[in-house]
Amino acid sequence: MSGTPDLWLVGIGTGAPGHVTLEGQEALRGASLVLVPRKGPDKADLAELRHAILRASGSGARVVEFDMPGRDPDLPYVRAVELWHDEIARRWSAAIAAAAPDGPVALLVWGDPGLYDSTLRIAARLDPAPRVRVVPGITALQALTAAHAVPFNTVNGAVVVTTGRRLRDGGWPAGAESVAVMLDGACSFQDLDPAGLRIWWGAFLGMPEQVLDAGPLAEAGPRIVARRAAARARHGWIMDTYLLRKG
Amino acid sequence: MSGTPDLWLVGIGTGAPGHVTLEGQEALRGASLVLVPRKGPDKADLAELRHAILRASGSGARVVEFDMPGRDPDLPYVRAVELWHDEIARRWSAAIAAAAPDGPVALLVWGDPGLYDSTLRIAARLDPAPRVRVVPGITALQALTAAHAVPFNTVNGAVVVTTGRRLRDGGWPAGAESVAVMLDGACSFQDLDPAGLRIWWGAFLGMPEQVLDAGPLAEAGPRIVARRAAARARHGWIMDTYLLRKG
Repeated sequence: MSGTPDLWLVGIGTGAPGHVTLEGQEALRGASLVLVPRKGPDKADLAELRHAILRASGSGARVVEFDMPGRDPDLPYVRAVELWHDEIARRWSAAIAAAAPDGPVALLVWGDPGLYDSTLRIAARLDPAPRVRVVPGITALQALTAAHAVPFNTVNGAVVVTTGRRLRDGGWPAGAESVAVMLDGACSFQDLDPAGLRIWWGAFLGMPEQVLDAGPLAEAGPRIVARRAAARARHGWIMDTYLLRKG
Repeated sequence: MSGTPDLWLVGIGTGAPGHVTLEGQEALRGASLVLVPRKGPDKADLAELRHAILRASGSGARVVEFDMPGRDPDLPYVRAVELWHDEIARRWSAAIAAAAPDGPVALLVWGDPGLYDSTLRIAARLDPAPRVRVVPGITALQALTAAHAVPFNTVNGAVVVTTGRRLRDGGWPAGAESVAVMLDGACSFQDLDPAGLRIWWGAFLGMPEQVLDAGPLAEAGPRIVARRAAARARHGWIMDTYLLRKG
């Protein structure tokens, strides 16, 4: 191998095969090698869905699976994530070196490679650095607002896009009217004063398992906590997101 | 006509035919009638691009163009927008009544129907109210971060999504680390203290005319103002967006 081949990060949406864009399909067809992560016996890696999307694209690329490492739970969060990304980059490099593709390497990325996703940061660790192409994809926030047919923003309004961790640590962002929350494993809206807040929530957005709920936070909040726990117990994992708005 | 037919708002991305999703194509094929706005002799309505996307989708729907009204420049902004939306809703109703489709009516929406777009609010004015389906689409913010291969957010970081008007009126949002700006006709980043800020800017994102620039705001800002003016003069119109980040 001379150097690292080009790396194409292809956003594929949130699990609905229909979220894939024409550009995404074309990129999968143009790739020589596709890396597919395996997380273990649970279904959260959605590897089968990735294979289905690849088949539907008409891609003839070689497909290589690699085992995703775990994150060290005993280290501080930021340090644990850094070491985890280092290790994923090593596994990509090893898989690419073993396959020795004669063209671009593609990764299928849930949602959009730019939004709360590590793939760009892992790619930056490869040495030598590959040329990186990003193909945008439908995010969970878009799947959420589409499913509820609700605008992301009010007229001329701002929206704070944030994480469950930040909402727990910092409370309602100062001066915010609309807040969209990602990566929340703890229903952090429970820590807010619900007075005057509405919520639009969705889990498994775009998938057959999709669950939606919405309403004044005081009423919908406890309902969502219960529905989320039940859906998680039923499926063994869950991905959800929500939008909060004043008034 | 008995009642209003279902209304499908189909996000088609920012002008790259490859931004269209498989779900978007399928919706265009399933529609009976497609409404296409005409804004007059200028090219900003991109009507030809809508027709090209329709042809590529294989849609056999009847296509009806309607003239977009203008906004009253002498009224206060919010009132002018309200009356403008009322008038657009009237034109949709008239076009639908004249065509009397026997199935869903589709509109092709630039970007995503949920993000700084009026289509959902105009649809809410139809009487009787139609069932509305939203098909998410790639937004200018996603096309921007993809073109620059830059993450939208920092690790566990928040992003304020806002408008040029709000940035001019309110300055840098309190406590924000990353700010994404839409609907800015005035390069409002010029009103900020550029110290410690980086900018990633793009115009005509996804189109053959795409222009990109990035760098420390102090250096890149004046360059972007000049490049934007030149591109606008050359094409007769412009659509642009940018991401600002501290540090």
